[in-house]
Amino acid sequence: MDEFSLIRTIFQRPELTTAGGQLDMGIGDDCALVPLSSEHQLVQSIDTLVADVHFPAGGDPFLIGYRSLAVSVSDLAAMGATPHSFFLALTLPEADTKWLEQFSNGLAAMAKEAGISLAGGDTTCGPLTISVHVQGFVPKGRALMRSGGKPGDLIYVSGHTGEACAALPYILNQRAVTTKAEQKLVDRYWQPTPRIKLGQWLLEHGATAAIDISDGLAGDLGHILKASGCGAELNSSRVPISPELKETCGEWALDKALCGGDDYELCFCWPAGKAIPSDIPVTARNLGFMTDRSEQFLIDGQDVSNFCAGSYRHF
Amino acid sequence: MDEFSLIRTIFQRPELTTAGGQLDMGIGDDCALVPLSSEHQLVQSIDTLVADVHFPAGGDPFLIGYRSLAVSVSDLAAMGATPHSFFLALTLPEADTKWLEQFSNGLAAMAKEAGISLAGGDTTCGPLTISVHVQGFVPKGRALMRSGGKPGDLIYVSGHTGEACAALPYILNQRAVTTKAEQKLVDRYWQPTPRIKLGQWLLEHGATAAIDISDGLAGDLGHILKASGCGAELNSSRVPISPELKETCGEWALDKALCGGDDYELCFCWPAGKAIPSDIPVTARNLGFMTDRSEQFLIDGQDVSNFCAGSYRHF
Repeated sequence: MDEFSLIRTIFQRPELTTAGGQLDMGIGDDCALVPLSSEHQLVQSIDTLVADVHFPAGGDPFLIGYRSLAVSVSDLAAMGATPHSFFLALTLPEADTKWLEQFSNGLAAMAKEAGISLAGGDTTCGPLTISVHVQGFVPKGRALMRSGGKPGDLIYVSGHTGEACAALPYILNQRAVTTKAEQKLVDRYWQPTPRIKLGQWLLEHGATAAIDISDGLAGDLGHILKASGCGAELNSSRVPISPELKETCGEWALDKALCGGDDYELCFCWPAGKAIPSDIPVTARNLGFMTDRSEQFLIDGQDVSNFCAGSYRHF
Repeated sequence: MDEFSLIRTIFQRPELTTAGGQLDMGIGDDCALVPLSSEHQLVQSIDTLVADVHFPAGGDPFLIGYRSLAVSVSDLAAMGATPHSFFLALTLPEADTKWLEQFSNGLAAMAKEAGISLAGGDTTCGPLTISVHVQGFVPKGRALMRSGGKPGDLIYVSGHTGEACAALPYILNQRAVTTKAEQKLVDRYWQPTPRIKLGQWLLEHGATAAIDISDGLAGDLGHILKASGCGAELNSSRVPISPELKETCGEWALDKALCGGDDYELCFCWPAGKAIPSDIPVTARNLGFMTDRSEQFLIDGQDVSNFCAGSYRHF
């Protein structure tokens, strides 16, 4: 059973989801929304990284700390939120002070970049596991959701996709880094860029839907299609492939860019005919468009609705 | 290095704690406070339970679920908060549907009891680890803190302490349960009672400080003494020992009641001369009193400031 079905069937039950305080949105999107003042909503998300599942246990602790916070902050970016604070639940086999200091330096570097404060945490002894709970604010009712896409909307992507996935053989020490291109992929794996400012700009200027790419461009666009009740047609020649990905992966570059996870770029829907200024960091402009054919996913006219079933899924 | 020093030295740095949104209180108490509307503050906490460290991996999944949420909700009770919602970060070795359903039933039972909604989560594959982030609300500026105790205040405790600790040999299958008394201790370990209503009553009626007992009555009272800059004198004959604890542990009962962790009862400071109605579930009335001798801890006149150094500490 994949993560989505699992959470739905086991946890999305009224006894759990409506047992107490009212939520504007709970399970089912990148973040939960808690109604607060008359002007804002609190946006919150939690993510766990497990050693040797989501990152190599022997990795540089600075980079592990940096990446742990970055992947959670990315969920706030996908909602257009302004980051506020986070909680850290850190389980580790021993209290290795040097490791912890470097880990904490990495956290601090990302915290500064994102403008987010550590608000609390718990440190326990056990197999290395890192859970980060993040929260931020959006103007009430304005959060970017997966469900707002409409037929005719254009599909855009920030940055380049597929790079983190292409880095895996180097991260796992199956291959040695010998070129600048390979090093760039490795850097993108360890230090993804949560698109906070882009998310806020999109919220302010009328994007209809957004998601951050953790499961792969095709897989995450699939989440938008499902939530929005739309289909999509993509033009593969517009998929954002970096020169470094092309150099390293050759003919597999498109496959990585479409299905590789862990990039934490934003994929979003944008009303057709509305311009995006050239200084907004959107690499793939008009990658394709949304259709009214529910969940039908075409690339270059070919039905690939199940094409990326192999993209990263928990379990 | 114990948990408290570890968190302080590694994480309580301005680059982390003041990198973004303003907090009324961050690291250092049971919960963090986030300023929100003009009337309320959000109270939040995260706790992790690791299999075979904090509970036996082979335990009843219903009870694991129940207890996981209860121990986090107890932090809200200690602040006098009204529970609102929680996030679950669940790492488990395989997607065992039956286990997950029972776990979820246990969560739901506690969620109903506490009036708290599941707001989101993350499920990952790895060694069984459970992190729960909880949040609730308090009237602004009214949260019960560890730091409010004053010389002359009386010290009170809810319920009975030491029972969860005394249950460990049975929980760990080192001994078989053969008496009703032993079964009651085991039940208290698995199904602690977060004292939510008591916490709210204490907030409303003027308790000066409170903490939930996770590290042991003496250890947690020590946290109040440190935060409040006070000392305390306890009368051991007033320590709340249940008949079941007495029957099972005999001459060790007082030791368990003073130093055993995991009870999740509330210990609090109360202004002398102010009555607590008899229907408020406080077992140990006037267990002792606060003094102006900073962190000096006397029991029956004997200095035991380091008496419970062996009480439960992470690492």
